[in-house]
This record gives sequence, structure tokens and C-alpha cells, in this order.
Amino acid sequence: MLIIGERINTTRKPVQKAVEEKDAKFIQEEARKQADAGANYIDVNCGTSVKNEISDMKWLVETVQAVVELPLCIDSPNPEALEAGLAIHKGKPIINSITGEQSRMEMILPLVEKYKTSVVALTMDETGMPHTAAQRTDIAKKIIDAVVKRGIAEEDIYFDALVRPISTEPGQAIEFLESLKSIKSLAKVKTICGLSNISFGLPKRALINAAFLTMAVYAGLDAALIDPLDKRMLAAVKVSEALLGRDEFCLNYINASRAGEFDG
Amino acid sequence: MLIIGERINTTRKPVQKAVEEKDAKFIQEEARKQADAGANYIDVNCGTSVKNEISDMKWLVETVQAVVELPLCIDSPNPEALEAGLAIHKGKPIINSITGEQSRMEMILPLVEKYKTSVVALTMDETGMPHTAAQRTDIAKKIIDAVVKRGIAEEDIYFDALVRPISTEPGQAIEFLESLKSIKSLAKVKTICGLSNISFGLPKRALINAAFLTMAVYAGLDAALIDPLDKRMLAAVKVSEALLGRDEFCLNYINASRAGEFDG
Repeated sequence: MLIIGERINTTRKPVQKAVEEKDAKFIQEEARKQADAGANYIDVNCGTSVKNEISDMKWLVETVQAVVELPLCIDSPNPEALEAGLAIHKGKPIINSITGEQSRMEMILPLVEKYKTSVVALTMDETGMPHTAAQRTDIAKKIIDAVVKRGIAEEDIYFDALVRPISTEPGQAIEFLESLKSIKSLAKVKTICGLSNISFGLPKRALINAAFLTMAVYAGLDAALIDPLDKRMLAAVKVSEALLGRDEFCLNYINASRAGEFDG
Repeated sequence: MLIIGERINTTRKPVQKAVEEKDAKFIQEEARKQADAGANYIDVNCGTSVKNEISDMKWLVETVQAVVELPLCIDSPNPEALEAGLAIHKGKPIINSITGEQSRMEMILPLVEKYKTSVVALTMDETGMPHTAAQRTDIAKKIIDAVVKRGIAEEDIYFDALVRPISTEPGQAIEFLESLKSIKSLAKVKTICGLSNISFGLPKRALINAAFLTMAVYAGLDAALIDPLDKRMLAAVKVSEALLGRDEFCLNYINASRAGEFDG
């Protein structure tokens, strides 16, 4: 199970301020804390300031990789901002993201080829964001065809089946979980998601998010875009992996417990 | 999702003492607390004192049903103790339990017929306790045949696929969860389990038990034998039901949250 640390995103006010002021210390501390907590990738997103996004992305990638030995998830709808980050990135990054929209694939897949990256693919297209597992799977099929035609490996696609809130659509957790299984039955692709949408509009969201992550790991989720400093989410990952036999002798779980990670 | 309150069991020292001393107040308080917490059935087990079990069971059933309007899960390997409880029970109880052992079925199924009860069926037989989902399902098949032949309804069987610890057998959570699905694919039977074995030998067992319950509810578990006063387990049930669209408008979840059930 891969953990993609989501904290370096300019939709968070202190991150936006740090990017504006080029406060390397703050950003590097955010990167280090996530790495120490067990993140496998650090997501970087500076999309809130459209006019500086290209130079900001370059600065973020350099600043983060100066202190952590991790690959990044370079997160932007703008191909120029993506390329500014990719050109100086060390290791194999993930591009976040393409969709099933033809125009978006044509803009971004050349970067996946050129920089030999992995890529997040959102299961949405020109017709909008789907509601059922079947619709999500149909879009995934179309994306796999387009990606594989370019010689990109199936294993390099991380499908994000886009979680919708259960408060307004009670069937959405099941549709999402079923789509994990059906998308993975299509090819050797992987799955990823941000989870917090599931609990939108409900109280005690952390409880719902952690239980949903537990079900998703069981249903086949390969990577989660989470805050690795959120103890409850990290515990859900470690407990799920121990339960599903992916943690030999439950050693990671036992060590995390000894280190006090599950306390408080 | 049915909650079977497991607290009235003479393997718990204070319960054993109360049964020995016929301390009705203590037992009734244990019953009331579990009912208030949301139990749908109260399990009663006084198997530790073999010589008094028959009279103790009669006393327990009377004592508990004097204060709660709930059916009981009458829990004993001894057909005479079962019948002593069944004869005075009000409502439709569950007998806990038969196994795939021929002799056990022949002793206990006549009571299921006579008192029109439901019955817990453990997926074990003369050859022992199985390790794989396929073995558990084979035993379930055999039990369904024997039960249905007597005209007992499939819906009245609650299969307990017997959880084994992941600390010694890392594949057991998956085997158990798969067996829930495959047993339910055989007939209109239900599934039940006690969960705490899963975490035997590991630290922070409550964390593992709650995550395993969450996965089991998603995999199709119909009833859980738990301590309904354990807030973490009860939260796992309520959150899972909200996630799986079984809690209209998430109202139970929202009310439980407002009532402070998820705090602390």
C-alpha cells in the first residue's frame, strides 16, 4: 500500500503563504514530517496561483527533493507546470492527473512518455463524473486503450475512481469499492484515491474516512492520497495490511504499536 | 446488522460469581446495559459450572427476560441446559450452537424444530476446525442439507465460520472474509461471528477487532457476537452501516454522533 502525502497543496493557507514567500524551511519541514511518518511519495500542488504556477512548481520540486529521498506526485492540470517540475525531478514521479477527456490525454500523455513517469487517471470524461461502478469501469477501459497504444505500461496507471459523498448518495461507497475490483480486473493497472469526500456533510468525518479506507484496502486499493500525520488514517493502513497478510509476522504493526503510533 | 451482546458468560469472573450467588440485580444490570447500548439479542452462557448448568440456565433466562424485551441467544453444548432455557423463553431465540458433527446435529436439531428457534452453526466437524474458505464452505453445505431436510428454514441458520488468529496464520482474515461470501452464495443463510480471536497474541487488539469487523460487514456479515458496551466496536458497526447505505440518510450515525457515542 503506497501512501501519497497530500499536505503540500496551496489550497492549505499556510502552504500557499510559504510558496508565495518562498519559505523553503516551512515546505521542507512539511516534506520531512510526511517522509518520517511513512509517506512513499510527496504530492506537490501549487495550482491556486495560476500566474506563477510554472515557476512555483519548479521551486517546490527542487525544495522538497533537497531534503527527502522520495519521488513526488506532481499535481497540476497545467502541462507547462507539470513539465517544469518533471524536467528537474529526481527518480520516477507520478503525474497527477489525466482524465478520460481526449484533449487532456493528448496534452499530458506525451509527458508521461518523455519523462517515463507513472500517471494518475481520474475516471471522468467529457460527459462528467460517473455515479456507477459500470460507468467508472467504461471510462477506465477507454483510458487503458489510449495509454497502452502509446506503449506506456499498464502498471504505470493509477486509477482514481473519484469518491462521492454518502450523505447525498448513499450507494456511493459500494459503487466506488466495486469499481476498484472491476477496474483491476481489466488489466494490471493500479488504484489510488483521496478518501475524504466520502464523509462530506457528516459529523466525525475521521471515523468514516478511516473505516472507508479499511474497506478500500480490502477491496484492492493500491495507493491513498492522505495526510500521513493523521494518526487514525495511518493506523487504518497498518491494521488493514496486518489483517490482509501483507505485513510479515505483523511486524510493522507491532513496531508501530510499540512506538506509540496508535496511542491518543 | 444484528448485535448479540456477549457479556453474560460465566467465563467472565463477575458473571460466574453472580450466577453462583443468584445475584439477579447484577445479571439484570448486565442485560439492561447491553439492551440500552443497542443489542438485538442477549447471549447467555453458564457452561463453566457443568453440574449446575441446567438450573443455572433456567434462572438466567428468567432473570434476563424479566427486565429486557429482547430474545436471547441460548449458549451451551448441553442439550438439557438448552432445553431448560428454551422451555421458558419468550419470543424466538437463537440456539448457540450446532456444528457439522453428525451426533451434535442429531442432539440439537430436534430442539430447533420443537421450539422453532434460529440456530448458530459452527463450520467445524469430526475432522476438526478448517483453515480455508473452501473447507468452511464444504462443511456449511453439509449442514444446510441436514437442516433443510428437517424442514427448518435456511434463513434460520447463522453460520459462524470460526475466526483464527492472524498472528499465527497470516491468511486467516482473508479466508474468513471469503468464506462469508461463499457460504452466503449457497443458500439464504445468515452469518455471525465472534471477532476477537483474530487479534490473539497482538498488541492493541481493539484496533484490529474494529477494522476486521468493518471488513466483515462489507463482506456480508449479518450478526456479531460482541460487547455492545465496547464503544469502538459499536462505532465500527454504525459507521459501516452508514457507509454501505443501510442507514437511511445516515440518521443512526448522526444521532449516535450527537449523543456522544463516538467520543473518548
